[in-house]
Amino acid sequence: MSTTTRHHEVTITADPAVPTIEIVREFDAPPAAVFRAHVEPDLVTRWLGPRGMTMEITRWEAETGGAYRYSHRDANGEYGFYGSFHEVRPGERIVQTFTFDGYPDGVCLETLHFQDLGDGRTRLRGLTAFESVEARDLAVSSGMDTGVVEGYEQLDELLTDL
Amino acid sequence: MSTTTRHHEVTITADPAVPTIEIVREFDAPPAAVFRAHVEPDLVTRWLGPRGMTMEITRWEAETGGAYRYSHRDANGEYGFYGSFHEVRPGERIVQTFTFDGYPDGVCLETLHFQDLGDGRTRLRGLTAFESVEARDLAVSSGMDTGVVEGYEQLDELLTDL
Repeated sequence: MSTTTRHHEVTITADPAVPTIEIVREFDAPPAAVFRAHVEPDLVTRWLGPRGMTMEITRWEAETGGAYRYSHRDANGEYGFYGSFHEVRPGERIVQTFTFDGYPDGVCLETLHFQDLGDGRTRLRGLTAFESVEARDLAVSSGMDTGVVEGYEQLDELLTDL
Repeated sequence: MSTTTRHHEVTITADPAVPTIEIVREFDAPPAAVFRAHVEPDLVTRWLGPRGMTMEITRWEAETGGAYRYSHRDANGEYGFYGSFHEVRPGERIVQTFTFDGYPDGVCLETLHFQDLGDGRTRLRGLTAFESVEARDLAVSSGMDTGVVEGYEQLDELLTDL
């Protein structure tokens, strides 16, 4: 882990009227590398989620029609998550569903776009759609932003190694 | 096919502010039968979609983490669809994604609830979430309602045989 990595800002937008969350973040790495860090399980476990969590993957088929299941663990407990890879378009786009075991009736649909900014840089844009504004607000208030910010900082650090 | 089957009304609600479509329909059959008609491929091909279409399934794993692909064909052409089964909770709930090949960047997330009304009746409630009001309005204006109404009429007829 490098302590000198420069971190870009994360923009998290929750439209008051529409139950979506948009997350935009730039990375100083080309789309192929940022994409790889999202689909190769040995890389994903190195950055996804907040700092101080251990991630264990029990299912991982990062291809169109595949599915995943993993858990995050810390001193306070274990948190399970699962979903499907609706579409994996290499280097460009991932569409996946997401459910937290602790809120089993909740589900959201996330579309990730990997945009090439040239000069070895990528803009990652994630749009997450919920079934209701209430469900979206619950996700926002759960401390999701910490997981996103710290996860992407860990991804910056991982990308310097790729 | 029975021509004497009584058909219930379909309620299709597209909230002007939120990009969802809610579809509610009752069936004179118990939840187990209505659910079965949604997961067994030999039954699904007998009712899904508008009248006059031939349905061919090329992938069908109706279980949590599974996926599907099928096409509808008529004299005018062939229309392909694919998606994932995010969750299949037997007799209760199906959560699935959906993309029409002709609009490959569009995707929606559909949650189907099978509610037991007693006396061998079921209320099916489907909530479909889109990423934007524009995408939802495009789906509505594509003639989706005809497919829903006629599909459920065909399902009524199938259910009398189960």
